[in-house]
Amino acid sequence: MSLMLEEIEEQPSAIERTIKRESKKIAQFAAKLKEHRPRLIVLVARGSSDNAALFGRYLLEMTTGIPVSLAAPAIHTLYKARLDFRDTLVIGISQSGEGVDINLVLDNSRRCGAKTLAITNEARSTMAEVAGETFLTHVGHERSVAATKTYTGQLLILHLLARSLSDGRKQADVERLPDLAAESLKLRPRVEEVVERYAYMENCVVVGRSLNYANAYEFAIKLMETCYVVAERFSGADFLHGPIAMVDRGFPVFLFAPPGPTLKGMNDLLGKLNEIGAETVVISSESSALKAGTRALKIPTRISEILSPIPYIIPAQLFAALLAETKGLSPDKPRLLSKVTKTV
Amino acid sequence: MSLMLEEIEEQPSAIERTIKRESKKIAQFAAKLKEHRPRLIVLVARGSSDNAALFGRYLLEMTTGIPVSLAAPAIHTLYKARLDFRDTLVIGISQSGEGVDINLVLDNSRRCGAKTLAITNEARSTMAEVAGETFLTHVGHERSVAATKTYTGQLLILHLLARSLSDGRKQADVERLPDLAAESLKLRPRVEEVVERYAYMENCVVVGRSLNYANAYEFAIKLMETCYVVAERFSGADFLHGPIAMVDRGFPVFLFAPPGPTLKGMNDLLGKLNEIGAETVVISSESSALKAGTRALKIPTRISEILSPIPYIIPAQLFAALLAETKGLSPDKPRLLSKVTKTV
Repeated sequence: MSLMLEEIEEQPSAIERTIKRESKKIAQFAAKLKEHRPRLIVLVARGSSDNAALFGRYLLEMTTGIPVSLAAPAIHTLYKARLDFRDTLVIGISQSGEGVDINLVLDNSRRCGAKTLAITNEARSTMAEVAGETFLTHVGHERSVAATKTYTGQLLILHLLARSLSDGRKQADVERLPDLAAESLKLRPRVEEVVERYAYMENCVVVGRSLNYANAYEFAIKLMETCYVVAERFSGADFLHGPIAMVDRGFPVFLFAPPGPTLKGMNDLLGKLNEIGAETVVISSESSALKAGTRALKIPTRISEILSPIPYIIPAQLFAALLAETKGLSPDKPRLLSKVTKTV
Repeated sequence: MSLMLEEIEEQPSAIERTIKRESKKIAQFAAKLKEHRPRLIVLVARGSSDNAALFGRYLLEMTTGIPVSLAAPAIHTLYKARLDFRDTLVIGISQSGEGVDINLVLDNSRRCGAKTLAITNEARSTMAEVAGETFLTHVGHERSVAATKTYTGQLLILHLLARSLSDGRKQADVERLPDLAAESLKLRPRVEEVVERYAYMENCVVVGRSLNYANAYEFAIKLMETCYVVAERFSGADFLHGPIAMVDRGFPVFLFAPPGPTLKGMNDLLGKLNEIGAETVVISSESSALKAGTRALKIPTRISEILSPIPYIIPAQLFAALLAETKGLSPDKPRLLSKVTKTV
């Protein structure tokens, strides 16, 4: 079994451990922050961590009402810009905590007046030193180059932070996540059955929206780095603004379709893709979406949208890991990549 | 000749007209705004206009020091979230001014306390009514579904706004843009020569960084919608964090490589791509980058990075329009698309 598959399987226990060990610290941090509530939250990350940041961008804005921005690292690293970061919380996310550019952004942000926070899996990393506060994903050392348990660990920390910072709006019942993640893992035999069909897939599109938009990015990056598939990622709306023109009969499109306000748009898109004769693979608990897909990966329990991203990415992680194996590739050691990528 | 090619050719005069007609109004708006300087700028758009927003995200943050965020429209349209938009300027960008979701975001933002601004090509559009202030691109009605002159018109308005809002940092000498755009158009015979080679290209990657990151998105969307090529878009740094694994011998990668702080990283990436044996097409004035590419589209004049995005996108627009023709497709009427896309 690949390390990637092993680490995918570890997720329910990793999530449970992180909730236990980190919740209190996060609640205390948020309580202190409420005395001087930030007026802007900036997230900064690369790769899969940046996909987690994209989830945070939606979740934090929705649940706290504080505007959120995804940083453009070059502004800090290459141009050393001075930004007006009064009343700003800058959150760096990095599995290793050794992303040189992310640490430079945190450092520059602090000098521009921001409070800084790190989310990392490594307590003794440079990032934990640079940031004013650190939250840890307690998922255990990640050995596969393809990030899986650190990605869901980062989503979890963002859930905990959003819940603590929330001004009373809708909150996610994160204590259910270990069970829901375990349920998603049971989809493995179904994914094994489906995956063989895509052994020679060269291109595809992954679509997700809102809280699952990050999952579209994450599934696509997994397909690119472990299966060498050219995988585009779009929100449903952006896909309709141009890129859908490239979709022809048989073109594979993967869709995340959780229940909630985004479901109607996803079903409309499925209808349009069916007219074209595209091949669609739907990850959903909803029969309206599942029936419309060429292939379906059914999430057994109906999970509210806000809680869906972690349980919904797991079948996609399984898909990428198993597709790599079916293609005779090692998902743990993609060509050209190493675990820590250093860019400025 | 396609409408798309006609409209590409109109850009120097369209830019000149917009500078003449809109500069004063923008300067007056900015002067008034300085009395109560915004602490956050939010940009909201879809499709090519969203690519222009991505340019604005870098330019405005660099030149004004005000943090910038790209809006997540769903937060406003599907979740009707109340955000803390005190001291915030929200800028909607839409060619037609009839993007339903963009107008809903502007409306919700105003109710959350923001000042709102529209950038559009249509003075009598819904967007011009909804927004507190409107800046017009005077590029003439755009008839091709593929946006070209409205995209560069939007970049230009963002240049003018950044210059007016700048706190004395580096500014772009926008008056040179009509001549620089005309110079870029002279690359057409060279593009015609190169384009035939890519008639059967199915996938590619487009890379740009910082102020030219938007151009990577814009070139990719043009290739997707007019040529049906599966075109991924990345910043150089994000490309190295995973996706580069899918690049094999002969895989086509297009790169924007203007002079300035991003050039070294782009040359390093070119070196890495050459090791893999990838096929690279470089748009640059710099011999270091041009020599490293498999094919080169040489920008005749060395243009400072801040001024480069408009002159650099033009050869890419020509490439997409001419590749579509060489493939026997009409770039003006991509399958499945209409000029105004309505999404919520």
